[in-house]
Amino acid sequence: MHYFDNAATTFPKPNEVYEYMDSFYRQYGVNVGRGQFKESSIAYAMMQETRQLLLDLFHVRYPYEVVFTPSATQALNTIINSITFKTGDVVYITPFEHNAVLRTLYAKQKENGFGINILPIEEKTLQIDIEKTRILFEKSIPNYCFLTHASNSFGCVLQVEEICKLAKSYGAVNIIDMAQTAGLVDISLNNSNIDYAVFAGHKTLYGPFGIAGIITKNAKDLKPFLIGGTGFDSKNMEMPEQIPLKFEAGSANIQAIAGLNAALKWIKVIGINNIRAKEKETTQKLLDVIKNHSNISIVRGEIEDNNIGVISCVFAGYSSDNIGQVLSEKGIAVRTGLHCAPKGHEVLKTSPDGTVRFSISYFTSDRDIQALETVLDYIEMEG
Amino acid sequence: MHYFDNAATTFPKPNEVYEYMDSFYRQYGVNVGRGQFKESSIAYAMMQETRQLLLDLFHVRYPYEVVFTPSATQALNTIINSITFKTGDVVYITPFEHNAVLRTLYAKQKENGFGINILPIEEKTLQIDIEKTRILFEKSIPNYCFLTHASNSFGCVLQVEEICKLAKSYGAVNIIDMAQTAGLVDISLNNSNIDYAVFAGHKTLYGPFGIAGIITKNAKDLKPFLIGGTGFDSKNMEMPEQIPLKFEAGSANIQAIAGLNAALKWIKVIGINNIRAKEKETTQKLLDVIKNHSNISIVRGEIEDNNIGVISCVFAGYSSDNIGQVLSEKGIAVRTGLHCAPKGHEVLKTSPDGTVRFSISYFTSDRDIQALETVLDYIEMEG
Repeated sequence: MHYFDNAATTFPKPNEVYEYMDSFYRQYGVNVGRGQFKESSIAYAMMQETRQLLLDLFHVRYPYEVVFTPSATQALNTIINSITFKTGDVVYITPFEHNAVLRTLYAKQKENGFGINILPIEEKTLQIDIEKTRILFEKSIPNYCFLTHASNSFGCVLQVEEICKLAKSYGAVNIIDMAQTAGLVDISLNNSNIDYAVFAGHKTLYGPFGIAGIITKNAKDLKPFLIGGTGFDSKNMEMPEQIPLKFEAGSANIQAIAGLNAALKWIKVIGINNIRAKEKETTQKLLDVIKNHSNISIVRGEIEDNNIGVISCVFAGYSSDNIGQVLSEKGIAVRTGLHCAPKGHEVLKTSPDGTVRFSISYFTSDRDIQALETVLDYIEMEG
Repeated sequence: MHYFDNAATTFPKPNEVYEYMDSFYRQYGVNVGRGQFKESSIAYAMMQETRQLLLDLFHVRYPYEVVFTPSATQALNTIINSITFKTGDVVYITPFEHNAVLRTLYAKQKENGFGINILPIEEKTLQIDIEKTRILFEKSIPNYCFLTHASNSFGCVLQVEEICKLAKSYGAVNIIDMAQTAGLVDISLNNSNIDYAVFAGHKTLYGPFGIAGIITKNAKDLKPFLIGGTGFDSKNMEMPEQIPLKFEAGSANIQAIAGLNAALKWIKVIGINNIRAKEKETTQKLLDVIKNHSNISIVRGEIEDNNIGVISCVFAGYSSDNIGQVLSEKGIAVRTGLHCAPKGHEVLKTSPDGTVRFSISYFTSDRDIQALETVLDYIEMEG
């Protein structure tokens, strides 16, 4: 298989990730709890080191905290469920939000009737139109902003720091979804006006499924989403106030955390900017190949520096699902459709059929791109 | 380390579990989504096979469904959050419920003010007193019953089938927590009056952390706890109605599911009743060793057939934490305290200090028990 579905999950992982996950779990696969015995203490220390590696990656330290969740979806649910929305509140989102934000907000909107406004996008760059946003914010003051850092469908990296700064001048609470950027696009959360930053372990962080979370210095404003045992303060019928314990009921997923630990160390060794540079290089090669085919339109912002290696395409005369089928039969793995982010496709007029999405990683090789080129040639000829 | 903390998580896992998790994840660690490419289809098929293995284990088939969650805590939160409790509703629990049930119910009780009654226990057997329960149910009709199948603190297996049958005669909805019994105590959910049965992958099922779930034929009565992308029907701003998709937002944890798959096949090969028989044998050896020490009191039901290999002890003259420390220093892993299940300790008067809990698995060896005996001898002598 030639794998171009890295925006769904990076594959393969660095070998260090597989190795450490397996060996750590075989040796220390116990419940961290309060850690009375050696192996439990070692597992706990590894978990705490993983939090520190995440804080380091985003250039913050205490009072910033890392709250682990089993998925970025759950991290976003935790944040959204912590907000006491009031009628008349104004929520801004980008058109590129994932259904983990969209559907969760819509469920809350049904209960509380707040407004959801979509930020305006510049057609050529797929960047947020800052001037129009200023006018919008002036007219309708933002209470909450949910901003994806980069579109999982179209690859555009949005100006989250600038928008959060602007929104914060109105006192808004800002949430960014870094599912497609954590570990790839260097960002400092320090003094950033970003209140909650959500990461997914299994995507650009090159870790496994089952581990994600929130980086924030405002954890005290969150409510527990999941209620249960904390291995501590068990007589207390409320969740204990200690952070992050308050948000991490149940057994810690030591195996997944070990995988993320190894992934974060791998990123540190390679260097986030080197990973980004390699990704840009590979993306350019892929774009060159795709552009050689007159039957393919690329839906993409024109400034490559503001994009990641997620390329959405429309094939003339064929539905995206059809093309996905043909690619699959020829050993090319892609994702087709709306990629769980329907609003962006509405705005960019690729709805309801969606796009054929090619997404790369650090491990996408020239061989992968050559194999894809052969199949794209075939589709163009047969078409 | 000599590991006696299997009630927290079984350790080690069968070698097949480590092997398959690692090899499957290396080969097929992709996002199942709608599975257009081969690897995604293989991962999806493995996930569906795992559901089938679970249905087989509990002797049911469609319309029973398996809903996966990242933890048993989350499965119980899903069920409890799905219930529209009304003032005046009567909820029965056993005194042995875990905080995943207790704290979650108490949080709901604060909002809705229903009653929570604790079922009466026979002092000698630690079984539910059926006659007193009959009288209680008659006086105060049950709307919901939350019954742990076996206590994670004291090892008593409760008469969940009998209580559910009785409660169902009043129209109650019955939920059982099989965290300590799934894969160990054979139970048929078919025609059982059990509406929702919760399992944890990483305990008696010998799978990894990160995978658990609900077995039910009433999934239609559940509400999604987690809202987000489903890789399907993305334009729908509600969660799609398809079961189990409706309850499984976000990326499937393929690695953990692969581990559970291997674990379920391992259980099938060994045979659940053989696992239970070996556990009984090991438990008896362990009990014999402990009973040889006059400074240790065992808090346990007197009929061994109604117990699992979870043994709670109190050491004369020492707090359970103190004993845990000494055991840990000598290479013995146990858990001490209230084990996230405080009510049982209140009822059995082991609160607030709790107990020293020795819990075994299929892999607990004579060598482990001999090592423990040496340390228990030392504690008795030094004491």
